[in-house]
Amino acid sequence: MFIRKVIALCLLLVPVCSSTLVHANPLSPFGYPPFETVAIHANSNNKDYELYIQLPKSYRDTKANYPFIIVNDTSFAFPITNGAMALMGGAVVKEAIVVGISYSKGDDRMVSRTRDYTPTFSPVDKNGNSSTARMASGHAKEYVDFIERQVIPLLKEKYRIDPKKSVFVGHSYGGLLGTYILFKKPHLFTDYIIGSPSLWYDNRVMFTLEKAFSKAHSRLPVNVAMFVGSLENDYYPMVTDLLAMEKQLRSRDYEGFSLRVEVLQGESHHSVFPGLLSKGLMATLSLEK
Amino acid sequence: MFIRKVIALCLLLVPVCSSTLVHANPLSPFGYPPFETVAIHANSNNKDYELYIQLPKSYRDTKANYPFIIVNDTSFAFPITNGAMALMGGAVVKEAIVVGISYSKGDDRMVSRTRDYTPTFSPVDKNGNSSTARMASGHAKEYVDFIERQVIPLLKEKYRIDPKKSVFVGHSYGGLLGTYILFKKPHLFTDYIIGSPSLWYDNRVMFTLEKAFSKAHSRLPVNVAMFVGSLENDYYPMVTDLLAMEKQLRSRDYEGFSLRVEVLQGESHHSVFPGLLSKGLMATLSLEK
Repeated sequence: MFIRKVIALCLLLVPVCSSTLVHANPLSPFGYPPFETVAIHANSNNKDYELYIQLPKSYRDTKANYPFIIVNDTSFAFPITNGAMALMGGAVVKEAIVVGISYSKGDDRMVSRTRDYTPTFSPVDKNGNSSTARMASGHAKEYVDFIERQVIPLLKEKYRIDPKKSVFVGHSYGGLLGTYILFKKPHLFTDYIIGSPSLWYDNRVMFTLEKAFSKAHSRLPVNVAMFVGSLENDYYPMVTDLLAMEKQLRSRDYEGFSLRVEVLQGESHHSVFPGLLSKGLMATLSLEK
Repeated sequence: MFIRKVIALCLLLVPVCSSTLVHANPLSPFGYPPFETVAIHANSNNKDYELYIQLPKSYRDTKANYPFIIVNDTSFAFPITNGAMALMGGAVVKEAIVVGISYSKGDDRMVSRTRDYTPTFSPVDKNGNSSTARMASGHAKEYVDFIERQVIPLLKEKYRIDPKKSVFVGHSYGGLLGTYILFKKPHLFTDYIIGSPSLWYDNRVMFTLEKAFSKAHSRLPVNVAMFVGSLENDYYPMVTDLLAMEKQLRSRDYEGFSLRVEVLQGESHHSVFPGLLSKGLMATLSLEK
């Protein structure tokens, strides 16, 4: 009888513990930045995500509004951005709220990122992805709807957000996603940090999207910092493609558009992100801007 | 009676929950790297610390031994190193166990790092530190004893460690600490990533320590990667000092010594760490080495 009660009570208590687990990082007193976690269901694609939200050091002590930074590929981009902002925020860049959008719960992360970060269905683009991931490709539209209609509104409702400064961060397929947002819904962010974008994707579909955008718009009032490692011309011509995109963009002379493109010497696809992230933060959140 | 049992059981279970909180990051299923936390009391200075231990992706699936990386200043260095290794490990560098040593519990982090990372008592070195922090300076010896006698033995006992590869990472005062270990107990690590070391500290005491080391040793069989940002000659002559240290080290022609020194263009003291970290990882854990 007592054993049954213990089991019943354990079943009652376990969810309480789990819920507590998800809402605060207990390590904060000892130097690791605390972050909050918010569970969220995306209406556009019927998937469940989590938002990891890192408030800046001064947040609780002020009534100020803060820029926000949205990162994807949270397995690496959230801790790196978080750590970089712990060091840089308030010292050489504005303090900002860092928001990571998790991979969709229960899905393989390669499937999740291929589905959410690619703009078109292109199952032939291998690049190390499984056929399952490739067959899921092409649903960036739904994912961007989720960011626009649910993530950003939640941030605006729940936190003190500065509407004049919002930064997108993406690398690789995440950089492809950033480029897609740039040509489809540029108003979603004021600033874009785009690392090693997969411009080779689907027969260089981003060049086509840019061309379509240019026919309908003379203004592109955003600040964009794009980077690639000099060693990234190995498998796909990523350096060549990025410089071609720079040339195409500059030829438009978009009103209000600010662009910085840098090829980081000696860096490869897997080594370039930490360095480009800090350079991107300097280019978008500088204290002088 | 039942209520009493419930209360008793709650009292039993709460510590279990709390302990669980500290031992695993619950976000791992959704893409954020899991890490373990181990509480540890330092016998040498009677302070309490935590170790944050990030096992590499393949760890549970293999019986292999892994290099370890020890980082300090966990508020920024642990998440950045963690994120960088999530991206780079197995792709462009060896997978490795990342170990962060927290600031001492209950202490202001500036006091903790000034006490633990500086080799000598030097209350006149201001550089933004409070007088309390400065008055605590000069106890790197005890902190290094703690690393040597407790942290590394714990790692060797608890995890599958490759004794042939261990990397120290430190930036600023953490870089000063790395330089101190290099000239006092170089055998503690096979590789050192030293960012923007505070070589100005206490009338450039590191140059004196190096000279003393050189008189007693012709061998220094370690691999060292040192970095500084080109903009770091502003408050202290950090670029000048690092190049002077490079010259002094090269003049010794130590047997077995490998040194790379790089000045990272356009980077300041607060922006340089993410980029130097990935370059340092490439210089110490390259798959080709």
